[in-house]
Order: sequence, then C-alpha cells, then structure tokens
Amino acid sequence: MIAENQATRRYVGQSVRRVGDGRLLTGAGTFVDDVRLPGTLHATIVRSPHAHARIRGIDIDAAAAVPGVVAILTGQDIADMMQPIETRPDAPPGRVLRRYPLALDRVRFVGDAVAVVVAHDPYTARDAADLVTVDYESLPAVVDAEQALKPDAPLLYPEWGSNVAYDWTIDHGDVEGAFARAARVVSLRLVNQRIYAAFVEPRAAQARFDPATGEMTVWASTQVPHTLRGGIAAALGMHEHAVRVIAPDVGGAFGSKGGIYPEYVLTAALSYRLGRPVRWTETRRESFLATNHGRDQIQILRAAVTDDGIVLGLDVDLISNLGAYSAATVATRTALMSGGPYRIQNLRVRVRGVMTNTTPTGAYRGAGRPEAAYMLERLMDAIARELALDPADVRRRNFIPADAFPYTGATGVVYDSGNYAGALDEALRRIDYDRLREEQRAARAAGRLMGVGLAVYCEFAGPGWDSATVRVLPSGAVVVTTGISPHGQGEETTFAQLVADELSVALDAVTVRASDTAITPQGIGTFGSRGTSIGGSAVLLATRQVRDKARRIAAHLLEVAEEDVTAADGVFSVRGAPDRAVDFATVARAAYAFTGAPGGLEPGLEATAYFMPPGRTFPFGAHVAVVEVDPESGRIQLQRYLAVDDCGPLINPQLVEGQVIGGLAQGLGQALQEAIVYDDAGQPLTGSFLDYGPLRAPQIPPLAAVETAHTVTPSPFNPLGVKGVGEAGTTGGPPAVVNAVLDALAPLGITHLDMPLTPQRIWQAIQEAKTR
Amino acid sequence: MIAENQATRRYVGQSVRRVGDGRLLTGAGTFVDDVRLPGTLHATIVRSPHAHARIRGIDIDAAAAVPGVVAILTGQDIADMMQPIETRPDAPPGRVLRRYPLALDRVRFVGDAVAVVVAHDPYTARDAADLVTVDYESLPAVVDAEQALKPDAPLLYPEWGSNVAYDWTIDHGDVEGAFARAARVVSLRLVNQRIYAAFVEPRAAQARFDPATGEMTVWASTQVPHTLRGGIAAALGMHEHAVRVIAPDVGGAFGSKGGIYPEYVLTAALSYRLGRPVRWTETRRESFLATNHGRDQIQILRAAVTDDGIVLGLDVDLISNLGAYSAATVATRTALMSGGPYRIQNLRVRVRGVMTNTTPTGAYRGAGRPEAAYMLERLMDAIARELALDPADVRRRNFIPADAFPYTGATGVVYDSGNYAGALDEALRRIDYDRLREEQRAARAAGRLMGVGLAVYCEFAGPGWDSATVRVLPSGAVVVTTGISPHGQGEETTFAQLVADELSVALDAVTVRASDTAITPQGIGTFGSRGTSIGGSAVLLATRQVRDKARRIAAHLLEVAEEDVTAADGVFSVRGAPDRAVDFATVARAAYAFTGAPGGLEPGLEATAYFMPPGRTFPFGAHVAVVEVDPESGRIQLQRYLAVDDCGPLINPQLVEGQVIGGLAQGLGQALQEAIVYDDAGQPLTGSFLDYGPLRAPQIPPLAAVETAHTVTPSPFNPLGVKGVGEAGTTGGPPAVVNAVLDALAPLGITHLDMPLTPQRIWQAIQEAKTR
Repeated sequence: MIAENQATRRYVGQSVRRVGDGRLLTGAGTFVDDVRLPGTLHATIVRSPHAHARIRGIDIDAAAAVPGVVAILTGQDIADMMQPIETRPDAPPGRVLRRYPLALDRVRFVGDAVAVVVAHDPYTARDAADLVTVDYESLPAVVDAEQALKPDAPLLYPEWGSNVAYDWTIDHGDVEGAFARAARVVSLRLVNQRIYAAFVEPRAAQARFDPATGEMTVWASTQVPHTLRGGIAAALGMHEHAVRVIAPDVGGAFGSKGGIYPEYVLTAALSYRLGRPVRWTETRRESFLATNHGRDQIQILRAAVTDDGIVLGLDVDLISNLGAYSAATVATRTALMSGGPYRIQNLRVRVRGVMTNTTPTGAYRGAGRPEAAYMLERLMDAIARELALDPADVRRRNFIPADAFPYTGATGVVYDSGNYAGALDEALRRIDYDRLREEQRAARAAGRLMGVGLAVYCEFAGPGWDSATVRVLPSGAVVVTTGISPHGQGEETTFAQLVADELSVALDAVTVRASDTAITPQGIGTFGSRGTSIGGSAVLLATRQVRDKARRIAAHLLEVAEEDVTAADGVFSVRGAPDRAVDFATVARAAYAFTGAPGGLEPGLEATAYFMPPGRTFPFGAHVAVVEVDPESGRIQLQRYLAVDDCGPLINPQLVEGQVIGGLAQGLGQALQEAIVYDDAGQPLTGSFLDYGPLRAPQIPPLAAVETAHTVTPSPFNPLGVKGVGEAGTTGGPPAVVNAVLDALAPLGITHLDMPLTPQRIWQAIQEAKTR
Repeated sequence: MIAENQATRRYVGQSVRRVGDGRLLTGAGTFVDDVRLPGTLHATIVRSPHAHARIRGIDIDAAAAVPGVVAILTGQDIADMMQPIETRPDAPPGRVLRRYPLALDRVRFVGDAVAVVVAHDPYTARDAADLVTVDYESLPAVVDAEQALKPDAPLLYPEWGSNVAYDWTIDHGDVEGAFARAARVVSLRLVNQRIYAAFVEPRAAQARFDPATGEMTVWASTQVPHTLRGGIAAALGMHEHAVRVIAPDVGGAFGSKGGIYPEYVLTAALSYRLGRPVRWTETRRESFLATNHGRDQIQILRAAVTDDGIVLGLDVDLISNLGAYSAATVATRTALMSGGPYRIQNLRVRVRGVMTNTTPTGAYRGAGRPEAAYMLERLMDAIARELALDPADVRRRNFIPADAFPYTGATGVVYDSGNYAGALDEALRRIDYDRLREEQRAARAAGRLMGVGLAVYCEFAGPGWDSATVRVLPSGAVVVTTGISPHGQGEETTFAQLVADELSVALDAVTVRASDTAITPQGIGTFGSRGTSIGGSAVLLATRQVRDKARRIAAHLLEVAEEDVTAADGVFSVRGAPDRAVDFATVARAAYAFTGAPGGLEPGLEATAYFMPPGRTFPFGAHVAVVEVDPESGRIQLQRYLAVDDCGPLINPQLVEGQVIGGLAQGLGQALQEAIVYDDAGQPLTGSFLDYGPLRAPQIPPLAAVETAHTVTPSPFNPLGVKGVGEAGTTGGPPAVVNAVLDALAPLGITHLDMPLTPQRIWQAIQEAKTR
C-alpha cells in the first residue's frame, strides 16, 4: 500500500515552450546534411527515364573516366554483396516482393534506380551520372490501378500472373439483406488522389562504415531508426548490434520517411564497400520521383439507406495503387476504418492492392484513415442530399452512441472510447450552425456560392508497443530515452513535462533523448499518432517505477517503513511528521552512494518500461468548413474553419494546436490543390514545385479564420488517456472542405467533384453545369 | 522452480582473442587526439616554475598580441564562471581542499597551473604561453613528508596550522601486551618511493559545448567517465544530463587517470566560455609535472615476534606524501591492509597524509595495497633473517588459515576467501624451492651473489557497485552496456564471453559498449580491480534476467508452462519432447513483435542490473624471484620469476596472463629503476623519460624466464567468484625482487636497501659493505 504521489501538477496541461525551437529557429539544427565527416564521398543515383523497360546493358566507361569519380556500381554489382529488402515479409507465396536498391534487369517506374556514381563531391557525381549510358528495351506500361486490373494489362511481375499484390475482403453482418430492406441506395465513386509529402528536408542518408571496428553508423532522415537499423543489418549481413542509426533533426516526414528506403540501405552498402563515409541527399526532382507517394485510392461505395438517412448496410470496393514496388497495406487501414464513427454492422469491404508503373505509394499523414473518413463523410453528405436532410442530422442518426464503448466495429476493430455526437454538437455550437445556414440562405438568395461542410471523423491510432528508460543521475538530473523518434511532434517537451510532474522536479532538470539506436532502448518509432500514447505511456510507467524506488530509498534514509513515507512536490517526508524529510536530490545521491544504496537496496535509480496497449486509440473530431466559391474564377475562399478534436487529455495545448494546424495545412492542400499526375505512358507531369503545389503560406487561411477546440474523452487503453492528434487535420480537412464546396455548388446541380478542387476544375464544373 | 540453463560453456575459460586488438595494432584506435572536430581551439597551460610562491601579477599583453591567440585566462578570470573541484568532500572542517583549475593567488608545486592560452593551433598556443609573464614572490618550500611534519615547516595551507591533511589510527587487540610478550622486536624503516604511471598516451581532453543545445560533450582520457561528468557539471553549474563524457581508446591509465583532473574541467570550461571545441593534450614534460604521481610513503614498522617467527603484534607508522593538492586516501588502504595475509590481531597503525610542495599523488596500480604487501613481505624476510629461519616457514607460521574465511582482520576488513599456504606451496613446488636453495648454496660457495625472494601478498579489491544493461535486439544480436570503463583490461571480450555462454549465442553476436555516459547506465568506472568482479557480475545478473524472460517467452511460443521449458545451447524445448523447440532468435523476434510479445508479456528483451557486492574480494598470490647480482657493476639479472596468483576462476586465461605480466613490468620497474626525484627546493630532477626510466622492452625479463600459474579460490562475494588480477604484478613484484636481491647480498651483510635497486645503489651498498 504505497501512498500516491501528492505532487502538484505543474507542467502537464501547460503550453510550456517547446525544447529546441530556439536552436531550429536560429539555423542551428543538425540535419543529415549538416553532419560533416572528413573524407566523405557523395553518391548520385542514375534513374530510369522509362516507366517500364528491360535493361539490356549499362555502359559506365565515360562516367568512370571523370576525374574525381571513385566508384560506379550497378544492380548486378551490388547483388553479390547484399540481400534485397524484404518489402513484404508476410506476403502470400507467389506475391513476395524483394527490392534491390538498384534494379537488376528491369525498371518499373520513371525514377527507378539503375546505377550509382560515387565521387569526391556531389557535383562531379551528378555530372558523371549523366554520362552513364543505359541500353533500355522499352516495355508497355500501366499507370492506372483500374487499368492494371484488366486481363490484358502489362504485368510488372509476370511471374505473378496479374498485378494484384493482395485482395482481401471483410464481410460482416447481412449486407445483401440490408440492401434488400433499403429505401434508397446511395452510390459514389471517389478518387483519393495521389499526393506527395512535400517535406522541407529531402531524404538523406550518410553512412560511415569503420573497417577497423566493423561498425556502421548511419545518419538518416527517418522516422524509424530502429527499423532502419534492422533493415540495413539484414541487407548487409551484419550483426544488428554493429549498426547504429541516428536520426538527427528531421525536416518533415509525415509518414513518408517511415520505411526502409533502398537509397538508405544503398548508402550504407557503399560505405561498407568503399570503407569511407558516403552521403546521399536526394534532389527535389528525385524526391518527387522516388520518395513514396501517398493516397491514390479509388473508392466505389454503395450504401443501403432508410428514408431517415440511417445506413443499413455498406458495400465498399477499394482499389489501391501501390506503384511499382510498394507493399504498403495503407488501403487495408481504409478498409478497417470503413465504418468510421458510424454504427454500420452490415458491411462488406473489398480491398485490392495493385502494382503499376508508378512511384511506390506508402504511408502519408493518416495512412488510410483520411481516405476512410473522406469516403464516409462524402457519403453522409450524399445521403443528406438524396434525402434532403441536414447533413448534421444524418450523421447524428448514424453515430455509434457514446455509451457503446468499447465498441467492436463490423471490421473487427475495437473502438476504445468516443463521443462523436458530443464533438459534433460542440462544433455546431461553436460555429453557430443555424445562423450559418441562415447566412447561407441569404448568400444564395444574393447569388453567392456559399457552402458549409461538415466532417466527423474518427481514426485508429497508436499501433504497436514502445519503450522508455528513465534514469536519474546522482545529482538528481533525469535523462529520459525513448524508443519513439520525435521529429517535430515535441515529445522532447511533453515527455519532460510528464516526468517533471511525476517526480516533482523542475522541467529543465529533465532531458529527453531519442532517435539514436545506441542510446535508446529498442523502439518502433514515430508514426500513426503513436508517439505520446505509446511512447509517453512507456515513459510514465518507467517514471512511476523510479518514483516508487525513490520512495523506498527515502524510507531507508528516514528510517521509517515505506508506508509511512509521503511524497509531495519533490520532497519525501514522514507521514505525520512533515519536518522529517529528504528531497529528491538527496535520494538520488543516496541511490548511487559508493558504499551502496541505503538498506541494501540495489544501487541505481532508473527503470525501463515497454508499453503495449490493450488496443488502439480512436482520436476523433468534428470539423466545419465555410467557403465561398467565386463562380468567375472557380477560386475557393475558405472563410472559416473550425476543428473540434478529441485526442483525450492535452499535455501541451500549444503543441496540440500546432499539430492540428499543421495537419490542416496539408489536408487543405490535398483538398484544394495537390496531385501527382502521370501521363498514360507513365511519365510524371508533376516533377517539381512548379507543377505540384502544396499550399504556400499566403494560401493557408489566416489563423484568425481557423479555430481549434477540443472535447476530452480519455482513452481507457493507456495510462495517460491520450489518443494522438497528428492526423486530425489531414483526416478532417479534406472532407470538410470538399463537402463545403459541393454545398456551395449545390444550387448549380453539381453533386460530385474529385480532389483537388483547383480553380480550373471548379470553373470547368461550373461551365459544364451551366451547359447542362 | 525454473530449470537452470543447461548450456555448454563454450567461451568462459577459453583464451578467445581480445576484441579490438586488430584495430589497435593497425593504428586504427581512436584516442582523444584522434577526435577531430572542425574549428577546434587548442589550449596550453602556463605552469609555475616555483615550488611555492605567491602570484603578485600576471602580464598577458605580449601573449595576447600573438596572432592566432583567441583567449588567455587566469585563475581570477575563471573563478567567476566556475566552482572549484571538491577534491575531498568528506574532509573534516578546517581541512577542506578545493582546487581551482588555475591557481588563484599562490602556486604550490612546480607545474602548478597559473594561466591558459587558447589559440587556433597548439604551436601558437605554446609560443604565446611562453610570453605570459608571471610576477612570483618565492616562498620556502617543503618536499619531504617527514620534514613537512616538523613544527617549523613551511605551510601550504597556513589556515590549517599544519601540513597534515589527515591523521588516523587503528588500534586493535593488545599491541603493548604483544610487545611485552615478544621474544624479539624486528624493526624496519622503508621508503616506498614516488613513481609515475608512464602511460603511453598523455592525459588529454577535448570539449565541445554546443551553445545551440546547451550540451557539453567531453572526450577525455579517463577511467571514470561518469564521475568526470558529475565533476564537470558541478564545476560549471550545468545539469548533469547536459554533460556527456566519452572515454575513447585510452592509452594506459593505471589508476592515475581515475579522478577529476582540473585540466579536464578547465578544457570544458573553455569550450563553454568560447562556444567552440577546445582541446588540451599534455606534453610528456607536463605529464611528469602535473599528472598525479603514485606511492611516496614512509613506513616505520615494529613487529613483536616469538622465537618461532610468529608475529604477536605489529606497530606501523605510515607517512603519505600527498603533494600539493591531493586528497588521496591511498595510504589508508595501506593501513587497512597492514595485516596482509597474516593473522595479526594485535595491530596498531597510524597513517598521516601530509601536504608538500610537490606534484599531487594519487592512485597508481594497486593504490596502497602494494605498499602494504611490500612492507609485510620485507618484514617477513627480516624476521626470517633475525631468527635464521627459512622465509617460507616464517610466512607459513603466520598465514590466516584456509579454514578461517570469511576472516575479519584487525583493521576491520573482511577477507572473503583465501588459501595463502596453498598458493605458497604451489609456488614452491613449481619453482622447486629446495633445489633452488641448493643451487644458491653452490653459487655462494662459488662466490656468486644469487638470491631467492618470496612474496605472498593479498590485497582488497572490487570497491563500490556497478551496472550493466543487456539488450537483445530483434535479430537476436545482443548489446551489453556497462558502467565500468575498460581501457585495456579486455572486458569487451570477457563480458561477451559471459553473455554468450549464458544465452548460448555465438560470441560475435554479442557486443559490449562502454565509456560513454550517453549510452551506458550510471557507473563508477574501472580501477581497483573492480571491472570484472563488480561490472561482470552486473552483466551476469542482467543476462540471467534476460535469459529468464526469454524462457517465459519460449513457454508461450511452445504453449507449455514455464516449468516445462528447458534451455540448452540456445534452444528452448519442451521437457520430454525435445523436438518441440524454438531457438533464441525466434524468441527475440517474438519479444519485439509489432503486435506485442507472446502471452501478453511486456514487450522487449533487456534488463539492467546494478551489483553491489556484500564485501571486497581479496586476490592473493605467491611470487618467487630468482636473481643474481653482478658485484662489479651492481647490475641485477632476474633469472626466473614465478607468479602464482589466485583471482578466482579465470574467464579468459590469456587476458589474465596479460594482466599479470603487464603488472609485473611495472612492479619490476618500481623495484629496480623508477623514482620521481626532487631537490630540496622542490625542483623535479626527473622531468622526462631521459631521467625517469620505466623498464624498456629489453629490460623486461624474457617471457621464458617468467612463469605464471594459478590457484583458484572463488570469492563468495560475487556470482562469478572472480577476485581481480590487475594489481598482482605491481603488488607481488617489488617485494619478491627486493627480497631476492637482499637475499643475494646477504653474504655481504647487507640487510636493507630501499627501492629502486639501481645498479648504482647496489654498487654503492656493496662498496660500503666492503669497507665496513
């Protein structure tokens, strides 16, 4: 019976300043390219200009003759020294996908890596790379996932017999019965377009293999240093303990730096081969070509609906364009979330992953959940339109009720907690929904295209386990190491807040270290809104072990039984005799006394915890967008945006707001502007920021127009109760905005548009509507 | 009831090759001076040419005008920015010793630091340092510790009123009674001379303070990175978590790199002040002047002896020369060990630490124990001579018997285990002692000066606790981190042997990391023969926790109860069904499965253990030296040397032999040749390798003449049973050799000589004996 810590909560819940911002804002960050090792060689990759071709030969002689070139290697050259990357170890037999960092005999997308040139400086490497001549035999290409499903489509992996990497179906309840009973069937065909993560820092890796020690250190712009370590060790046949991966400052990742990139493994292999440090940094053009793209999903929905707008059943067909080498199961996340916040127990969802001659696709902020939310929220508005109901009412009638949690969805996922109606009500209250609709009526009467869009989303977050070590040093200073790998999320700050409160020490007495496999316990990394719910919970558990041991030590120092020690505000005192007390620093010093800890306790004051939650968290929210469309230009003006999110308790409100706003900038980008486009031959038409535009600062709605708010529904699945918030904006944003625009355009009879809602596309739709 | 690991011991006990030797032998080691950081500044220290003086003023103008000089700081300059080093936090009031890295107003030895010059390169710094002009007011100096005790001696710390830093007495049993009962009193006055550790790599530190992060990294040639971290943080007022200390390869330390050197703290302070990396590397001359010296102890003994040579009582007066700033309690170790392997319960020992105007003294290989062994073994031979007994017999009659352990000595130390008679018997058997004495008689008859010297020593080793983390990675590779800081002892190898056997994995699947505060649990470091007994035991305990968890995971994978799992040779199988089995790598993978560890166990497969033994270990041994003295030159030829040591079980016999031989090279150096000498004014006369000669390779007896052997008496105080062996050679060596030489010279009537036994000293003694 140990008394609970009576500490005052001084930091948790406060918007304390983010650690390290000063460093980044003054240009003193350390990104991979800032790691300067003497004698570093520079690698440039020769990439395919063909979407699909056989390699008949590679002539490196002219390139090799360039002074300063150290080595040129082709796929065949490195095949001897390394294993391919197992991009999908769990694939069914016959669908196994092993990717060599350089193509062996066939290229499958424009940008596929064919050879690498290593030189003393990057300019020489680039020039020499242009002199590498590849003899290609062009092959027919397929770009569109639906086309790739056709029997006569060109095959990327002829040995498979088709382009289908996976084809899964979930069928729950009585879908056919639901459609038989339905008053209406509402159908939609949606394209969730391919986009690019548009991080500021391109992918980069620097590897230093030390032949003297046999040890490899890799600095990489990555979200998952431990996973990358395992991948590099496996590829090079090294012991995992001989590889160290460090993610220094990472200039944006958004899910797209979450895997084992072939270029990173290649950079390590080059250093291993050449015995010198090697750096590879992609150009922006390369980044567009060869960094995993996100989304690219075709969604075909049929909903069985009552006259009241209640969804009796749902039939979903998802076709995911995987690109040339991806094994991403992003679309299966869409499938699992295809019930969303709605009580739809008769549900069938088929999901197919299809190979095409395009850049591989993978995770991008939300990774499948935004696609699910987009699909369902478009559906809800379509039902409302079909039945002339208010979109808010349709949603309310379908929500999983707040008292139904934990709730098992039709797809088998267990929702931890939620109050969707509560979030929507809060949003409608804050936005003054009724007045908004009045304003809209007035606007319409005046011929203005004003629209209001709702999106109520939920997503499942926090996969896997993660780890933390909390080590109190003899002075009482605390070092926290975590298996997650923060790269902007701010856990260096929030974890310190947690620990400082739990141990009742000053915030600056705590430091948080991450993103270096040599100093952290094994971890999984940062993605999927897992950092705080999983990593933070591990920190909390470890901290509580430390606190309990500190109390045991204090009991010995105070010469009383452990039950008689109370802890408050960093001081341990005897129950009923508060002047008999020792402070935390004294306890720390005693833990490390040269002659042993008090009472024969094991010396030391540290603990390591691995936390595996019993299930996923389900962050949710209700977003409202208010837009006006200029019928002349097709330009959309976002007049107001309200995001009511529920991520459980807020550890640092300012950081939460930063996540929401940042996500929103990207969500609005997808809704309004961004798209990776190919021609039919597989040539990308969006290979630079000239062609592909994420929202620029002036396009992001002024903060005055964006309001963030929160409901707080703690998760029962972790001790912090937190749910994650990083994906709120990319999940809620696109459907809210698109629904608002379609709502604005409704008087013109326009019922469907696919993203991005560029002025051109809007203008064209308006012109077409006018001529109908 | 968990079945014990049935693993075959494959590595422990084998002389597997030392990890990292290839790297060092090919010149690929990384010492502090190999750490090359861009923009590094170089520091040179201006040192006092006076043994004792007041600083009246310092003129830096000429030095500051040298192009390339960045900063010049004096003691007054840095006093503002840092706290002094608490060299003896436990000192009695009035004897507190705080040392500033640069002297404030008084210098106390030749080499005392007065100012520091920082420049773009070390040559400029050196040149400019010569231009710093210090106005000294010379003060009378005292060099000899006995002189320093006199009432009229110059005082180093006038406020103390004397030069005595400490004065302790242990008085046990009835000493006066013993002397009253004694048949004889044997007296000795011995000088254990001051020596220098003579490591290959001089002391060096490089500090990088990063103003952007507020973090300090210090690379230092040290044995105690964690202690140094704490010291630097305290001196600079930084959080301990913001300081990282890395000991890269260390080119010899031998106890003399075990403290918080002011130059290291100063280097950190300079980087903090200047915001740039700063390096300081001592020259060899500086090293002689300013690195702690070892030994320097005057021993005045009186033994109350029976006619049979049994020591009834012992009265010891120890005077330790601490030099100018030392707080070393080395001599108290001599006091505590002044019973040695002998049952002497009537014992009085007084020990005084005395300040003098010389370089501070501190730990050197053995740190007080060699002094105790030397004193007792000289005594045993003196008793034998006095009573015309065989030296072996005198020892046998006084040994603590093998059945008396654990044995509490008169000084309060608890001897863990021992069998001194066993070691001596083994030594005499191996050396064929009786034949040796016959040979000696024949030699003497032929006029040759042949001598046989014995030394039976024991010492107390393994102070404090230490730590280890054993982390199995998902691939099954194992990373061990340890709080000790190996620098030649070979624990990177021996710990891997322990872990590989315990987990039944291949030796190269295990790597051991140390000497970096960022990657290791808090530790104490490597000194006092503590590395393996304390650090290795922590590794063993952590490994066993890992093994037990691996077994629990295996039980879940095999779907049986834990009691039904047996482990052998890296495979876990079902008891009675050996074909139902999983290997270690499968268990490791399962521990880190993304979806959680089997059976809902906490994910991960690692453990951290801190080990505090219940008491010290007492390594011991019996050494025999056979010499012949050339009466014409006074030169000593070491004909044979036998070292029978007992350090408990041998984990890696080759490494143990390396420790014995290496220690012997230093022990013989002290016996024969080495001495730091001052003139009466405090000017050192041995400031370079020209004046001070450690044994050079040709002087070290050929390996053919040196035999090492072992008895094995495990310690009950740690789970490995090991005792430590690093100090065997420096402890057994000097008395064995000196006793042998005195035995050789006995026919000439020479009964006493102090070390070092240089040819000159021997020759002089022979000449004096001839003229007597």
